[in-house]
Amino acid sequence: MGEERLERQIRFILEIDSLKGVLRQSYLAGVDRRENSAEHSWHVSVMAVVLAEHANEAVDVARVVRMLLLHDVVEIDAGDTYVYDATSAAGKAVREARAADRLFGILPADQGQELRALWEEFEAGTSPEARFAAALDRLMPVLHNWATGGRSWREHGITAERVIERNAAIAAGSEALWARALACIREAVARGDLAGASGAAR
Amino acid sequence: MGEERLERQIRFILEIDSLKGVLRQSYLAGVDRRENSAEHSWHVSVMAVVLAEHANEAVDVARVVRMLLLHDVVEIDAGDTYVYDATSAAGKAVREARAADRLFGILPADQGQELRALWEEFEAGTSPEARFAAALDRLMPVLHNWATGGRSWREHGITAERVIERNAAIAAGSEALWARALACIREAVARGDLAGASGAAR
Repeated sequence: MGEERLERQIRFILEIDSLKGVLRQSYLAGVDRRENSAEHSWHVSVMAVVLAEHANEAVDVARVVRMLLLHDVVEIDAGDTYVYDATSAAGKAVREARAADRLFGILPADQGQELRALWEEFEAGTSPEARFAAALDRLMPVLHNWATGGRSWREHGITAERVIERNAAIAAGSEALWARALACIREAVARGDLAGASGAAR
Repeated sequence: MGEERLERQIRFILEIDSLKGVLRQSYLAGVDRRENSAEHSWHVSVMAVVLAEHANEAVDVARVVRMLLLHDVVEIDAGDTYVYDATSAAGKAVREARAADRLFGILPADQGQELRALWEEFEAGTSPEARFAAALDRLMPVLHNWATGGRSWREHGITAERVIERNAAIAAGSEALWARALACIREAVARGDLAGASGAAR
């Protein structure tokens, strides 16, 4: 029984290797290519460790990290949904729930249930940890765009107004990080890296 | 002062983006290419969460995860050292200490010191957390080779004897995972994916 438990865990570990093949819309700052969801998950997990002191509410950093390590594994089956893509967002919840059934179902039942509950908490944003994790998940693409001359914003014709609208939820996790994100957005508009048509970002 | 603190943290976050461009010798199981050190760091961190119950000693899982999230950032300056490359291993400690000076030095002093101490603890293997983290860091390439027909072992002409010799330290972190690694090695030899010249793996 102990052996079957370990086999299921090893199977899960090997299965999630595929997250390294799921590409996001973000371009990297340190390497000239788009980012995959596994390395993104690493990056936001490190952010949780480094930026924890900026959370609005007291958070259990270890829980935030566990959430962020696993927040995107459903993309292995469901694909990455671009934050500005409303069409793709429509079926997202159903696709991802099905993916969660399969992926967390590989693990021993108790462990699969625990980690799935953590993923659901992240999706629902119902705890200080979930809100702070979501803030980091949104902040990173703003930083990546800021560091790459607005590369993915320009590629998709995104305006400052939409960036602000779609990322304002950062404030629910961290007012300090939202203020920093707004500074990046304003600077990107000033530089001409982000269309500020409505003037909202000025 | 609070603002300068956040600026240093953001600068560190953007600086470590480059870890996504550091390639390891391991081939992925889910995607046909070599692995980078950022996605590797994510993978071993998830392993810590999933496999914690197999540690020999009681471990603080959150500390193991923090260690694993940051254990390879020095490679941004020092490069990845292949576990079977003795020549490259020679200057490794000096190169990595210099990298740690620069990278952890970007952070606010208190935080940089804390995270650097964690990295040094990992390198020294002086705690149950460090030994378990090192076990996971070594187990994953064995699993990747096992899952890819021994691809990087064959590419570098590695024998079962050397795999056993270089990875026996897994047992210091987890006897259960070392037993599992040995089973992978034996199976790889039996399949002809790993040279068992000395017969050590049979």
